Amino acid sequence: MKILFSFCPKQDQQSSLKEKFPQVDFIFQKSLDEEALKTADILVTYGEDLSASHIEKAVQLKWIMVASAGLEKMPLEEIASRNILLTNARGIHKTPMAESIIAHILSIKKSLPTMAENQRNGEWVRKLKSSELFGSTALILGAGAIGSEVGRILQAFGVRTIGCNRSGNTASSMDTMISFNQLKETLPEADIVISLLPSTEETKYLLTYEHFQCMKPSSIFMNFGRGDVLKEDELLQALKDENVAYAVLDVFEKEPLPSGHPFWKMNNVIVSPHASSLSSQYVVRALEIFSRNLTEWLNGSKQFENTIDAKRGY
Amino acid sequence: MKILFSFCPKQDQQSSLKEKFPQVDFIFQKSLDEEALKTADILVTYGEDLSASHIEKAVQLKWIMVASAGLEKMPLEEIASRNILLTNARGIHKTPMAESIIAHILSIKKSLPTMAENQRNGEWVRKLKSSELFGSTALILGAGAIGSEVGRILQAFGVRTIGCNRSGNTASSMDTMISFNQLKETLPEADIVISLLPSTEETKYLLTYEHFQCMKPSSIFMNFGRGDVLKEDELLQALKDENVAYAVLDVFEKEPLPSGHPFWKMNNVIVSPHASSLSSQYVVRALEIFSRNLTEWLNGSKQFENTIDAKRGY
Repeated sequence: MKILFSFCPKQDQQSSLKEKFPQVDFIFQKSLDEEALKTADILVTYGEDLSASHIEKAVQLKWIMVASAGLEKMPLEEIASRNILLTNARGIHKTPMAESIIAHILSIKKSLPTMAENQRNGEWVRKLKSSELFGSTALILGAGAIGSEVGRILQAFGVRTIGCNRSGNTASSMDTMISFNQLKETLPEADIVISLLPSTEETKYLLTYEHFQCMKPSSIFMNFGRGDVLKEDELLQALKDENVAYAVLDVFEKEPLPSGHPFWKMNNVIVSPHASSLSSQYVVRALEIFSRNLTEWLNGSKQFENTIDAKRGY
Repeated sequence: MKILFSFCPKQDQQSSLKEKFPQVDFIFQKSLDEEALKTADILVTYGEDLSASHIEKAVQLKWIMVASAGLEKMPLEEIASRNILLTNARGIHKTPMAESIIAHILSIKKSLPTMAENQRNGEWVRKLKSSELFGSTALILGAGAIGSEVGRILQAFGVRTIGCNRSGNTASSMDTMISFNQLKETLPEADIVISLLPSTEETKYLLTYEHFQCMKPSSIFMNFGRGDVLKEDELLQALKDENVAYAVLDVFEKEPLPSGHPFWKMNNVIVSPHASSLSSQYVVRALEIFSRNLTEWLNGSKQFENTIDAKRGY
């Protein structure tokens, strides 16, 4: 049983895996080792280094663990046709991302950037355009693990949460659920609109200028899912037309956001450099999920966490 | 029955009071009207305009409603000796203050000021010194309405809460309670130390340089109670000596914070200009408490909310 990593966990994390699974031959490499891949049974990767031809050569490969959540760079078709088990680290992002999202919301609501500017200028200014989070309404697009965690914490702040997914099926920590086709009629209710949508055929350019026109002029729009849920030119126009008050963006159509892009200089846009999911606990948590699944695998069981249907991509 | 206000609520708030209590003669003035005070039965004030001689002249006065929480500028001795009912707006600060406190904590934890600086410089920098709030420990000095609200929300973030008050008596949303004399032994456990203490004989200069020495070098110290719980020179020294990593200060020994004070220019100090309790909902909520108490008063009942023992000052 040979398990290839295409990234290097810390020394103590490596030792802990070897100790826990002495029957396994672990190979830890800083990048994808194409030779080792040919004989590997299991691959653990961040999901950005695999091509279709890799899958073709990896004749022994039975399971790919993606130690992240995004799968858009994976050769899903080839994985599906080979029936390779695909799992990811869905859920490990929920804590750092929910904290980041709430951080940005409260920072805007409590005028922290203005307060910081006043401090830089040595000015004691009590009149700030602060408002309360309590009593507001949040619309959360993508009501999975992260969306529900954001919803749970927002509810603790006294926020009404509306979840939105393809089906409108129920999700936890949402006061109401809607489906994608109810978006336009629901957007006018929301003070905060948060997209956590992955990039799929159904979500690409889901949000258009018309959607921004439906939002409250005082609303905060946040994109913490994937950049291609909207065309940035349309969001830019909506900000200029004051259809929304703020945009907080953790993801972009092109990353890094190109220098010279208007977002960099806009006072009502926060450029978060795809940083919301980063955490010192990231690899620890991903390896926890992997270890639990590996135990199942070695026991011949099939109760895996976080399996992905490679055909659908989620 | 004559009720004098020494501040002016909005027109609709005034009308609503008059409508609700037609038997009452309301007088709304922008500041304390000394003539009207002589014949007033009830005074509603922000609590910063009353002197001992006012109390002496206000021969009809039976009740003072302070539409704020701080009572340190009130002539408490004279009020006590006349047995005038004293109530305040305790509790109305809890929502805006808890939101402000959590906003500052998350902003530091998620490196939002650094992110903003990088954006101003047009720099895409993913490596930020972010950390998680989840799993940390907060020590909350002053476990009243505000402290418990802060504790409740921190618990939703997965934070362990330690409350601290004079007696060590239980308070809601605290995992543990300690009393003032257990502070030094408990401070080393805390990642976040939040003072919400009022200014009383027992809390003045309660926190000394020695206390800061007990804190974690990575800790965030926050003062959202009253400025004289510490000597600013001692906090300044502790920050220089790296006994604590950050200070977030909403209150100061002298307010406004004098220009030229070192805090203005320190990167690890946030100067919040006594702004955390400000809210558009402030007067609305204060008048709700007042209205409920006034209904009791007119019914001859004595089930008042938020009564203050003028002798003790809280």
